[in-house]
Amino acid sequence: MIILGIDPGYALIGYGVVSYTAGRFKTINFGAVTTSPSLTFPQRLEVIYRDINQLINEFKPDAMSIEKLFFNTNTTTAIDVAQARGTILLAAQMNGVPIYEYTPLQVKSAVVGFGRAEKGQVMEMTRSLLGLSKVPKPDDTADALALAICHANTGTGKFAKIMKGEN
Amino acid sequence: MIILGIDPGYALIGYGVVSYTAGRFKTINFGAVTTSPSLTFPQRLEVIYRDINQLINEFKPDAMSIEKLFFNTNTTTAIDVAQARGTILLAAQMNGVPIYEYTPLQVKSAVVGFGRAEKGQVMEMTRSLLGLSKVPKPDDTADALALAICHANTGTGKFAKIMKGEN
Repeated sequence: MIILGIDPGYALIGYGVVSYTAGRFKTINFGAVTTSPSLTFPQRLEVIYRDINQLINEFKPDAMSIEKLFFNTNTTTAIDVAQARGTILLAAQMNGVPIYEYTPLQVKSAVVGFGRAEKGQVMEMTRSLLGLSKVPKPDDTADALALAICHANTGTGKFAKIMKGEN
Repeated sequence: MIILGIDPGYALIGYGVVSYTAGRFKTINFGAVTTSPSLTFPQRLEVIYRDINQLINEFKPDAMSIEKLFFNTNTTTAIDVAQARGTILLAAQMNGVPIYEYTPLQVKSAVVGFGRAEKGQVMEMTRSLLGLSKVPKPDDTADALALAICHANTGTGKFAKIMKGEN
């Protein structure tokens, strides 16, 4: 199973492509989609949509694992993150890739084993599980890889919940 | 100039297509894009994206006028409205349609003449300006037509602000 993990955003979207077969992880690719602040916001959405489409076409993931959004901070930023996330979901949907979403708590539980794990522990466990020499930068990319691992570990378990009409 | 007014949402998106030439309005089309709650959320985004594309291809608007979002109510709904709005902006962007956004206050000011106008006044003025026998239903459709009028009345004036990178 190939999983595309996504840490949503509009200026920088972390992604990680991981294969999970017979209980073993293999890191296929990771990085970030970035959009320039010199673009209009709709132009940034176009870049995001096209780049996510390209990732899907290149790596042909069996699932997208994306962080669930909560709004409790800067609402202007939050609106734009949500708008960008809509175009990311659309790219998966238009390519027939099933979408799963997980909260940060679920990611921590799935990767480290308990929901109150610190960020550093999640990153170190992600690095270790994927056999990487160091934690990928930026954090958004490491988060995306953790989301991919989360889906592999829980995709058929208690956290698995493909996006519903009323999600 | 042909203007596509949009009242964003994910279950129901009001739209209104208006032409504005030499100070005169002509109503071309209005209605609503709806998505069934029985669909997954990504499926609903696909319906929205495809339907907005279809409206753009059919009516070839010179501008999209869409309501600016503010979050101060139910955040789960707000996230989904924002995600859907992202796919609406994407549809305009992918078709080269310039996007303008207006607050409800700007719409009231532009349509009725003062920002503290009541909803009923905005609807009645919208009906009158467009030469309709009655106010279109649902309210989202009437709101979309008001957004189109707002852009016609203010598109080159003080409210005009094409969406910027940092909007």
